[in-house]
Amino acid sequence: MSESDIVTFGETMLRLSPPGNERLENAAEFEVRAAGAESNVAIAASRLGASATWLSKVPETALGRRVVGELRGHGIETDVVWNHRGRQGTYYLEHAGKPRGTNVIYDRENTAISTAEAREFNIDRIQNAQVFFTTGITPALSSTLRETTANLLKAARKGGTSTAFDFNYRRKLWPPDDARETLTRLFPGIDILIIAARDARTVLGFEGDPRQLAHKLGTQYDFTTVVVTRGSQGAVGWHDSVVHDHDAYATDTVDPIGTGDAFTGAFIARRLDGDDVATALEYAAATASLKRTIPGDVALVTADEVEQVVSEDAEEISR
Amino acid sequence: MSESDIVTFGETMLRLSPPGNERLENAAEFEVRAAGAESNVAIAASRLGASATWLSKVPETALGRRVVGELRGHGIETDVVWNHRGRQGTYYLEHAGKPRGTNVIYDRENTAISTAEAREFNIDRIQNAQVFFTTGITPALSSTLRETTANLLKAARKGGTSTAFDFNYRRKLWPPDDARETLTRLFPGIDILIIAARDARTVLGFEGDPRQLAHKLGTQYDFTTVVVTRGSQGAVGWHDSVVHDHDAYATDTVDPIGTGDAFTGAFIARRLDGDDVATALEYAAATASLKRTIPGDVALVTADEVEQVVSEDAEEISR
Amino acid sequence: MSESDIVTFGETMLRLSPPGNERLENAAEFEVRAAGAESNVAIAASRLGASATWLSKVPETALGRRVVGELRGHGIETDVVWNHRGRQGTYYLEHAGKPRGTNVIYDRENTAISTAEAREFNIDRIQNAQVFFTTGITPALSSTLRETTANLLKAARKGGTSTAFDFNYRRKLWPPDDARETLTRLFPGIDILIIAARDARTVLGFEGDPRQLAHKLGTQYDFTTVVVTRGSQGAVGWHDSVVHDHDAYATDTVDPIGTGDAFTGAFIARRLDGDDVATALEYAAATASLKRTIPGDVALVTADEVEQVVSEDAEEISR
Amino acid sequence: MSESDIVTFGETMLRLSPPGNERLENAAEFEVRAAGAESNVAIAASRLGASATWLSKVPETALGRRVVGELRGHGIETDVVWNHRGRQGTYYLEHAGKPRGTNVIYDRENTAISTAEAREFNIDRIQNAQVFFTTGITPALSSTLRETTANLLKAARKGGTSTAFDFNYRRKLWPPDDARETLTRLFPGIDILIIAARDARTVLGFEGDPRQLAHKLGTQYDFTTVVVTRGSQGAVGWHDSVVHDHDAYATDTVDPIGTGDAFTGAFIARRLDGDDVATALEYAAATASLKRTIPGDVALVTADEVEQVVSEDAEEISR
Amino acid sequence: MSESDIVTFGETMLRLSPPGNERLENAAEFEVRAAGAESNVAIAASRLGASATWLSKVPETALGRRVVGELRGHGIETDVVWNHRGRQGTYYLEHAGKPRGTNVIYDRENTAISTAEAREFNIDRIQNAQVFFTTGITPALSSTLRETTANLLKAARKGGTSTAFDFNYRRKLWPPDDARETLTRLFPGIDILIIAARDARTVLGFEGDPRQLAHKLGTQYDFTTVVVTRGSQGAVGWHDSVVHDHDAYATDTVDPIGTGDAFTGAFIARRLDGDDVATALEYAAATASLKRTIPGDVALVTADEVEQVVSEDAEEISR
Amino acid sequence: MSESDIVTFGETMLRLSPPGNERLENAAEFEVRAAGAESNVAIAASRLGASATWLSKVPETALGRRVVGELRGHGIETDVVWNHRGRQGTYYLEHAGKPRGTNVIYDRENTAISTAEAREFNIDRIQNAQVFFTTGITPALSSTLRETTANLLKAARKGGTSTAFDFNYRRKLWPPDDARETLTRLFPGIDILIIAARDARTVLGFEGDPRQLAHKLGTQYDFTTVVVTRGSQGAVGWHDSVVHDHDAYATDTVDPIGTGDAFTGAFIARRLDGDDVATALEYAAATASLKRTIPGDVALVTADEVEQVVSEDAEEISR
Ligand SMILES: [Ca+2]
Ligand SMILES: [Ca+2]
Ligand SMILES: [Ca+2]
Ligand SMILES: [Ca+2]
Ligand SMILES: [Ca+2]
Ligand SMILES: [Ca+2]
Ligand SMILES: [Ca+2]
Ligand SMILES: [Ca+2]
Ligand SMILES: [Ca+2]
Ligand SMILES: [Ca+2]
Ligand SMILES: [Ca+2]
Ligand SMILES: [Ca+2]
Ligand code: NI
Ligand code: NI
Ligand code: NI
Ligand code: NI
Ligand code: NI
Ligand code: NI
Ligand code: NI
Ligand code: NI
Ligand code: NI
Ligand code: NI
Ligand code: NI
Ligand code: NI
Ligand code: NI
Ligand code: NI
Ligand code: NI
Ligand code: NI
Ligand code: NI
Ligand code: NI
Repeated sequence: MSESDIVTFGETMLRLSPPGNERLENAAEFEVRAAGAESNVAIAASRLGASATWLSKVPETALGRRVVGELRGHGIETDVVWNHRGRQGTYYLEHAGKPRGTNVIYDRENTAISTAEAREFNIDRIQNAQVFFTTGITPALSSTLRETTANLLKAARKGGTSTAFDFNYRRKLWPPDDARETLTRLFPGIDILIIAARDARTVLGFEGDPRQLAHKLGTQYDFTTVVVTRGSQGAVGWHDSVVHDHDAYATDTVDPIGTGDAFTGAFIARRLDGDDVATALEYAAATASLKRTIPGDVALVTADEVEQVVSEDAEEISR
Repeated sequence: MSESDIVTFGETMLRLSPPGNERLENAAEFEVRAAGAESNVAIAASRLGASATWLSKVPETALGRRVVGELRGHGIETDVVWNHRGRQGTYYLEHAGKPRGTNVIYDRENTAISTAEAREFNIDRIQNAQVFFTTGITPALSSTLRETTANLLKAARKGGTSTAFDFNYRRKLWPPDDARETLTRLFPGIDILIIAARDARTVLGFEGDPRQLAHKLGTQYDFTTVVVTRGSQGAVGWHDSVVHDHDAYATDTVDPIGTGDAFTGAFIARRLDGDDVATALEYAAATASLKRTIPGDVALVTADEVEQVVSEDAEEISR
Repeated sequence: MSESDIVTFGETMLRLSPPGNERLENAAEFEVRAAGAESNVAIAASRLGASATWLSKVPETALGRRVVGELRGHGIETDVVWNHRGRQGTYYLEHAGKPRGTNVIYDRENTAISTAEAREFNIDRIQNAQVFFTTGITPALSSTLRETTANLLKAARKGGTSTAFDFNYRRKLWPPDDARETLTRLFPGIDILIIAARDARTVLGFEGDPRQLAHKLGTQYDFTTVVVTRGSQGAVGWHDSVVHDHDAYATDTVDPIGTGDAFTGAFIARRLDGDDVATALEYAAATASLKRTIPGDVALVTADEVEQVVSEDAEEISR
Repeated sequence: MSESDIVTFGETMLRLSPPGNERLENAAEFEVRAAGAESNVAIAASRLGASATWLSKVPETALGRRVVGELRGHGIETDVVWNHRGRQGTYYLEHAGKPRGTNVIYDRENTAISTAEAREFNIDRIQNAQVFFTTGITPALSSTLRETTANLLKAARKGGTSTAFDFNYRRKLWPPDDARETLTRLFPGIDILIIAARDARTVLGFEGDPRQLAHKLGTQYDFTTVVVTRGSQGAVGWHDSVVHDHDAYATDTVDPIGTGDAFTGAFIARRLDGDDVATALEYAAATASLKRTIPGDVALVTADEVEQVVSEDAEEISR
Repeated sequence: MSESDIVTFGETMLRLSPPGNERLENAAEFEVRAAGAESNVAIAASRLGASATWLSKVPETALGRRVVGELRGHGIETDVVWNHRGRQGTYYLEHAGKPRGTNVIYDRENTAISTAEAREFNIDRIQNAQVFFTTGITPALSSTLRETTANLLKAARKGGTSTAFDFNYRRKLWPPDDARETLTRLFPGIDILIIAARDARTVLGFEGDPRQLAHKLGTQYDFTTVVVTRGSQGAVGWHDSVVHDHDAYATDTVDPIGTGDAFTGAFIARRLDGDDVATALEYAAATASLKRTIPGDVALVTADEVEQVVSEDAEEISR
Repeated sequence: MSESDIVTFGETMLRLSPPGNERLENAAEFEVRAAGAESNVAIAASRLGASATWLSKVPETALGRRVVGELRGHGIETDVVWNHRGRQGTYYLEHAGKPRGTNVIYDRENTAISTAEAREFNIDRIQNAQVFFTTGITPALSSTLRETTANLLKAARKGGTSTAFDFNYRRKLWPPDDARETLTRLFPGIDILIIAARDARTVLGFEGDPRQLAHKLGTQYDFTTVVVTRGSQGAVGWHDSVVHDHDAYATDTVDPIGTGDAFTGAFIARRLDGDDVATALEYAAATASLKRTIPGDVALVTADEVEQVVSEDAEEISR
């Protein structure tokens, strides 16, 4: 069994979206892409040089094969439990600018992964990795998955593997109270927390600016590292009681979905590569900014392109 | 409340299909269309001059609105219960010729309609119609719907409305034994049965050629009319102890899905308009043959086009 | 005959437009959509909760059927005279930003509607409505339609139906002098006038800011309500000698065509629903701003989305 | 002024057609192409080695520029009168196989060419050519064009230019009686007549098989050459009292429109190049067969490809 | 290093093809897919259950990354030398039926692989496989590759790995004499030869029916196994002095490119899995027939689908 | 031989670009367009009223025919040497906004034009023109072309034809030192130089603001006219020792490629038409600004549209 630097666990959906700014109610065609926070993170990490494997449970149909194939095509390894009964999760995405806003309809109940138990996965793969990663979406999907998430985090810690977790609160999946209760229970098993300032406030009830949020979270729950993201104003990283800060880069956004996952995947990959938190934040912000120029959830970037953004060396046309 | 000649009840899905002969596993885009046996039948009937209403229960989302809008755009009335919780049913369709064959993946569990009860619908609308129609797909979708189907058929009969039923066995929805048991229990409430010769044999266990099947079914279950379809070899119609017969027309098929529904809708519309069974079979076969030249489930034909096929008056180019 | 809150009368064209910013001179494909000021208004009104019917005369061809089907699909009723001879009107649309600008080529001479006379329509439908609506485009299309417009406005008034009129001057259809002479002759039969500040100045010869224009128009012609729109700076509404004012909302525009119709349809629907002029202007501006994010002439919005804009509650991504 | 071997005169339309076998009533997009019998013939002739110029009158709009540009792109010269008022003609095309058939809706009234008079064109260009060509469609378009067609044929004859004419009866443009009366009046000015066997029978009232039709036409009207086409059964050519005969080639047809024009253009080009009638018929049939494999009205073939068909040297894959 | 059952070596191109039957000369868009005989074979083998790795040398650009990603997405492993200088090979493909035929324009000179030497590859990977496979295309690409092909075949043999070779003569790459001279020199190092009957005749100069060709080739060059394919009439397999025979299956072909590669990949996979030659030929023919229904070079089939064809158990619609 | 006002010489490629902002690594389709600096300039000049011919050497394939046909379709004449061996040059283009930027991959080695010698072209055509134009890209393509460029410039000068040259340094084609050495050697034969301020600095080593650069270049190399462009800040023109200046117009850019060529073509056309340098700069800037709203390399504008920009008379919608 080959080993990966980072192993992620979660659901990857088919994302169905009308072209351009057409409406779901009316479009003749939907673009189709594999999309899910945990595979997005694996891909972003892999694009920046980490080896990455995505673990999941998928239906044994053309749809499940499609998800797995598309992810492999983006450069990561996949290790999935094939399932004869559960559905393939999907989400419908409608892109729009102001004031309509981009909108998501989830259709992910009773999916294949909803019945996934820890014993179905190859725990060695997790324990041989440097980092195990999942997000707050996974335990939101089923009660079985709440348990499975906890068990996999435990297994990772037991194997000496670092654990990283993106809080990723999704209002359309569960109410804030359920999320807070479930996710804070997982916090003791987590080394690196990534969380949006908004979630820290509205779900966890913290107050203050992002620097204060990072500090409070880090000290209260004893994380090694806390990254608090704040949309187009960048992110702060708390580590060893120090808070670092990096602005977002200016972008011509064509698809905002997956920005946070690109950020997180790049941050982890650069940390694994030896960067300090400040430098990793810089590359994470650059990767996130490139993602926003790319249609789809996934950060199909190269390490060279990220370097170019960091060195602010872009031209309108490169020829 | 306006009245319709024919009222149909059932689920209409989003049909998601790759363009041309692309594979679900690989296509970049899916074409999207509303599709369901009972709305297909309503549309075909409407195209041949009957007024038609489709009853259903749909999710109160862009997807549900899309289904309703698309059906209205094809010329029928819709009378639906809007639902806050159930899913929008979908099916994935991959077109292919020999030897691959066209393939369907259903994703229609826990849909909005699966919880529909008879009391949610306006029974007057059914009782003021000439014909109430549904198919063997509806009771296959949930146990609630088995009961609802039975109740609506009873209500129709009570209101003096004729009942028509397409057997439509779907192997991917339920096993033959369940279908036989459930559907034969509905037979006493049905006036007009449409059934594929193959289903009569493999699900109901009858033997013989289509003429014999029609005769046996008609006499055993006391239907008014039985139509047995036999694919590219046309159909036979049993009525008043007489069996009529009509061949299928030659077609350059681009989409075989919905052929049977086009046949059934046209048959009912022509019978309502006063045709004898032999003539109605002829128009039904013509409508079905036109359907096969049209992408999508739906028979977007005109009555004039059907007449032209019946009169065998076609040209390669009309200009 | 079912009754509608609002009945509109006018021509709906096929709109043929290259994808994206391609040129008509060069594009391999044109997108096709039904489009016309009076059906746009009916749809916007219907989306905000009014029942709406569009009256017209259309060719009895696949093109005429398409227009009718597409409009029904957007939720309104249609009541049309089918015509064996006239053409289906079309317009060619080329989208572009600065400095090219979006450009229209009309091809709407000798269309089916150009011969429409008042006696061809069901006058009861107009007289049973709350509001009858048409625009300055209709009388620009033929001399017969000048008379028909006048006759339908008279019939509405006679039936106690309010009359609403969007001035909608189109330089490519007729010269300003003809428009002024023809349209001011209709003014005595109109209750609610909607007019662009630019048209009030360059066609009617009024001077002043939008508030002054509304006041002058209202008092000189004895309208009940006058709405003067001023592009991205919003609109003013004059009613009972008071002038109300609302700014436009910021938008990421993908298609500016139909903005005014969305505004007007929403304004009428909200007024019918009991809003005062100031509130109706607010919802109208919100509907217009959403329209600008949607490809096509038509405001495919929901009342909920409009509420969200009014409450300024939007997110970049809703999930 | 450069000289061309063949000069053709007629209207070229925008052809608007749904992709694949979609219906006009429903398709989201139309493919757009320049299409007209006389420019089709010019292009086919040019592809087989003749120099060709198309004369016409077109609107001075993006649509007119598009038609001219597209034709130039296919290799011919254009010499057009730009017009500020008339419309750009269009036709809507719906492709279908059996039993639906391919269907055309013309929208070509009051087009720019309908007012074209002979004095608007450069007569020298016609008189310096080897062949002047037009079809029975041109005089069907307006009474002015009936006169113009007669005048241009006269001018050609006067300049010693051969005249060729495709009868091309279009039922949707005029009744058979009008066509017969108008077109037979032009016959004395025509050297080479191309006519479908069906038109010779149903419009002109001749009887007999194609060989007999050719012979009767040739002797009755004193043509130099008569070609009678008979669809998928090929064509016969009458010349110097001898009748030659060639079968059509087997094809996998994707677009039958323009088959006859490809045939005619190739026939004329090969005759100009010195072929006898039998050989020219062979190349004409080969060019027509290739056309049927190409989407659009136009025979975008090469002379080499035609040679390959004639030598029956094709492979399934050439690599 | 993970081990594969089959290792293939060769060039994979970007295939650029107009949609449908459009011409290269005219289409607005080209479909893009990775395509190459040796990766096609690896993918077909993998789809039938063998593990497969493709070796190559590709440019370190978005185009090279695309090829590698697309192949990984289809389920195989890739092990490539990234190159800073050579081009990405492409081919332009125009699909057509009779009499035009499908046509290929190669653009593969000076590509990255043309400079590939045996020492650049991981020979262990070849020597740990069961089968090493390449085709007659590879040595046609450059003189360096002639040597490299010979060296890799030698290395395989030395490591005890079986060698398989598809003769694949391409007229547009080299003349028959060069091919014969070069390829027969490789024959002593080859265990399994696959060759089209046409190539055996026109390039190698053998005579006789396919059974005779297989026998003559097998005995003359001392192959273990010889498969002679004969297009739509199936294939024969010679092994242990016995000739086996299997017809092709009937297909509705949408893309004939890659049929032979699908056949070969399936044949090798089934032989590796223990099938006798007769059975392997049957599965190979079934896989090839499915390929013809799939757009693109690649046999995106499942083992289940192949089984269904072998058991002749297909339906027009599976639902 | 007809004469043109301007004759240009250079390579025109197939431009292959994913739709929208898709990545080359992932897009299912590429849009295809003919694109090359010298034909871009010819087309822009022609659009502003000059007659223009493009000289080149192209492969005798569907790809070469496509390039020639597409350019003729845009309104210019072409006079090309057809070649049996060289490749068709291509370039891959990926559009993106900040911070990714638009990116180009050239694939133009060993193209047909790379072997073009002056004696292959019709020198009379150059010597009968008013202006002969080429760019710094042409001599970058091969050593043969360095000589050919010099010879054609000499021939032009000898025939009394003005010579115009766009410096157009392309970093991905050659290093700055080679470019400087080669191109400055051509300077004595050039009358009108167009150069980007950036190239003047980084390739030629000049310093100063654009006005100073123009002055220094003009006096040092004895040009008649020097135009220095400076991106979105417009351009300066030096002539008769006077420097003129014009800002760029504000644009909503959809495709920045070809902006400079549009500028140059318009500048030359207007100078030929008698404009002074200041006025020509104004029209050049307007044409360049329109180009940025048009997909593709080519300025498909009309003279009227350019006038409208110059008169700053645009509307958001013209109807
Ligand atoms: Ca659409
Ligand atoms: Ca595709
Ligand atoms: Ca379709
Ligand atoms: Ca295009
Ligand atoms: Ca669209
Ligand atoms: Ca499309
Ligand atoms: Ca097409
Ligand atoms: Ca397309
Ligand atoms: Ca495709
Ligand atoms: Ca895509
Ligand atoms: Ca597409
Ligand atoms: Ca395009
Ligand atoms: Ni896209
Ligand atoms: Ni669009
Ligand atoms: Ni669109
Ligand atoms: Ni599409
Ligand atoms: Ni998108
Ligand atoms: Ni893809
Ligand atoms: Ni389909
Ligand atoms: Ni396109
Ligand atoms: Ni648009
Ligand atoms: Ni299609
Ligand atoms: Ni469609
Ligand atoms: Ni077509
Ligand atoms: Ni097409
Ligand atoms: Ni095209
Ligand atoms: Ni294809
Ligand atoms: Ni395809
Ligand atoms: Ni672009
Ligand atoms: Ni584009």
